[in-house]
Amino acid sequence: MRRLSTADPGFEAAFSELLDAPREDAARVDAAVAEIISVVRAGGDRALLDLTARFDGHAPETAEALRVQPAEIDAAVAGVAPDLLASLDLAAARIERFHAAQMPRDLALPDPAGLTLGMRWTALDAVGLYVPGGKAAYPSSVLMNAIPARVAGVRRVAMCVPTPGGVLNPLVLAAARRAGVDEVWRVGGAQAIAALAWGTESIAPVDRIVGPGNAYVAEAKRQVFGRVGIDSIAGPSEVVVLADAANDPRHVALDLLAQAEHDEAAQAILITDAPAFADAAASAVEDSLRGLARRAIAGESWRRHGAVVVVRDWDEAAALTDRLAPEHLQVMVADPAALFARVRHAGAAFLGRWCPEALGDYTAGPNHVLPTGRTARFASGLSVFDMLKRTTWVEASEAGLAAIGPAAVALAEAEGLGAHAASVSARLR
Amino acid sequence: MRRLSTADPGFEAAFSELLDAPREDAARVDAAVAEIISVVRAGGDRALLDLTARFDGHAPETAEALRVQPAEIDAAVAGVAPDLLASLDLAAARIERFHAAQMPRDLALPDPAGLTLGMRWTALDAVGLYVPGGKAAYPSSVLMNAIPARVAGVRRVAMCVPTPGGVLNPLVLAAARRAGVDEVWRVGGAQAIAALAWGTESIAPVDRIVGPGNAYVAEAKRQVFGRVGIDSIAGPSEVVVLADAANDPRHVALDLLAQAEHDEAAQAILITDAPAFADAAASAVEDSLRGLARRAIAGESWRRHGAVVVVRDWDEAAALTDRLAPEHLQVMVADPAALFARVRHAGAAFLGRWCPEALGDYTAGPNHVLPTGRTARFASGLSVFDMLKRTTWVEASEAGLAAIGPAAVALAEAEGLGAHAASVSARLR
Repeated sequence: MRRLSTADPGFEAAFSELLDAPREDAARVDAAVAEIISVVRAGGDRALLDLTARFDGHAPETAEALRVQPAEIDAAVAGVAPDLLASLDLAAARIERFHAAQMPRDLALPDPAGLTLGMRWTALDAVGLYVPGGKAAYPSSVLMNAIPARVAGVRRVAMCVPTPGGVLNPLVLAAARRAGVDEVWRVGGAQAIAALAWGTESIAPVDRIVGPGNAYVAEAKRQVFGRVGIDSIAGPSEVVVLADAANDPRHVALDLLAQAEHDEAAQAILITDAPAFADAAASAVEDSLRGLARRAIAGESWRRHGAVVVVRDWDEAAALTDRLAPEHLQVMVADPAALFARVRHAGAAFLGRWCPEALGDYTAGPNHVLPTGRTARFASGLSVFDMLKRTTWVEASEAGLAAIGPAAVALAEAEGLGAHAASVSARLR
Repeated sequence: MRRLSTADPGFEAAFSELLDAPREDAARVDAAVAEIISVVRAGGDRALLDLTARFDGHAPETAEALRVQPAEIDAAVAGVAPDLLASLDLAAARIERFHAAQMPRDLALPDPAGLTLGMRWTALDAVGLYVPGGKAAYPSSVLMNAIPARVAGVRRVAMCVPTPGGVLNPLVLAAARRAGVDEVWRVGGAQAIAALAWGTESIAPVDRIVGPGNAYVAEAKRQVFGRVGIDSIAGPSEVVVLADAANDPRHVALDLLAQAEHDEAAQAILITDAPAFADAAASAVEDSLRGLARRAIAGESWRRHGAVVVVRDWDEAAALTDRLAPEHLQVMVADPAALFARVRHAGAAFLGRWCPEALGDYTAGPNHVLPTGRTARFASGLSVFDMLKRTTWVEASEAGLAAIGPAAVALAEAEGLGAHAASVSARLR
């Protein structure tokens, strides 16, 4: 854990180092992924069966067996504790409500020149959802990825999830059902991305692929980008907590550790204006670590990437936060909305002392799929906007064409595009 | 040119072939581009100067000379004919007005459980605009790429344009000035994308790069994706014209040729319900071709990729249009709005007999940077949304936490994330 203070002469160098320190080795898997995609394009279902046997250690015999059957989902849901299903329902209902409120309106703009200009939003036809398997198979992520598609009106939501050894998490299936996923395929890795992008005999191709994954999945998404849409490439997670001395240091410590426990590459940063509170929080982190089941992971993350930064004032804190552009931002000061208004770059913000980021991971309502690794400078969390596209339109009358046509002709001629010019001038009297 | 009819028994096979026919060879330039990016990252301005001398055939001596100076822009603008500047102004004003109308509103959603959920839009800090040089240096594209950034509130807009032999198009500079571009750099190719993404001593890095380019530029954008945002990878352009027999076939022919004259890989498709009109339009294309300065390019595009499809009714036409998901769609029937409402996938639509697509290229107002090559299934034209990002936020009171916290604890425990659960439960009484 780094301890920094903006009052120290070496601060800028140390903070820059914190900003630029790589947290993950970028595995070079380009060639392996290109090979897998090419094998799936050529071999279809047969290739999926072979690759699944090879990578996931279970060997379905037919393509039909790659699909999780409705009866299997029924059985899985029946085995989930009712209070857990109720929690899933509460989360799903709140996520639905928030994403429904995001839905944008169409635009129709009458124009003084006699035209009407517009913009229309329509849903994608089909979306593929990648869900990681093994330790990172999170039912909450199924809700967060599938519900925006359903709310936006996507007709078909297909989910791929690797099942190492053939085992599936029942709560993941319950979440898929609750979120309205249409198809669940036990296929993972780059082969799942290839199947969703290009289609096989069994799996129809989709128009966009969302959801996190390992280095192979990320590279596969990069390689199929253009054929289909993708969401941003997920990197290691991070939180910045802005907290004053009026907070309980134990709460802040748990908030930092909730980020750190995700994986060793996660990053948790506390920024405070109170040196004594910085000490108390750092000490509370050590105390809380001892009681955590995931203390090995969280401890490693905190030691390698954690930081406590003491600032002279909250303007400094806002400026540092913008340089970090964190995925998650907690604002725990007397007037959190005012401080949040001074920050430009963050994926999601949690305002006040009663709003730990973990609420947002599960039940608050906004999406927890968020831009990581400083990409909140330009990227946004998953939303209905990822499941929609826009068509702009123009309607022109003869008078409208007469008003703006001659300028179009002049510009087309200047660009040397004679048919463009002629298509307008032929209609002008 | 293919002539198809949905009444023919071979239609489905012929239409599928039309859909899948490659229009461009995908040049494999991955390794060359990776090398250029690595050279620019290591060498900065010096590398840019070397690469510019090598690829663009002119050798600026200092990095300062890579920047187009305000006096050069003044001189260029002074040399442009006043009526052409007036046309540029008319176009810019209309593009500004339409994009201003696109600006989304923030969301603040009070919640029955005692929380407030919100979504805030903020502009990117810095955007890089790539403008192709040579024959494809279009001033209209400078307006279309830069104005959405300015309207959205982007603080810094930097433009890179290759200048083969050192020559710059004066109207491109006039458009850059009119659109409010802050910096113009005479740098092109993959080296420009590398400089915008990673920065050099002279060129500060940006957060997102937009604008079309050749295969090297497209691959470079793909490789820097993640470090910065990018727009979609532009492919060859296309138009679908839905036209009934009440149209003047000469108008329709010019509309098809306006697409075809872009380049040999462009595609123009007429869909009509009237066989005799199909013949008349095809014949008018041949007539009009003879008078075009770009008849070689347009003729090649029309012969290789053009098509005339006769349908039995407009429902068929709408369904075929969705399969084509064209960049541009002209709807020239008695009730164009009703037919447009039955089409789901198109980048931009032009409604009515007085609305050639070329209006939209220049002066209508909506953006002409649009999704090509069937990507309108999932992608949208350039807009203010490309220049903004969203931050969602949650504000919770103690009562709000009490209402939704226990479900979050249950889900966190089910996912094995103990610190997540503890960060919530520690705050519950």
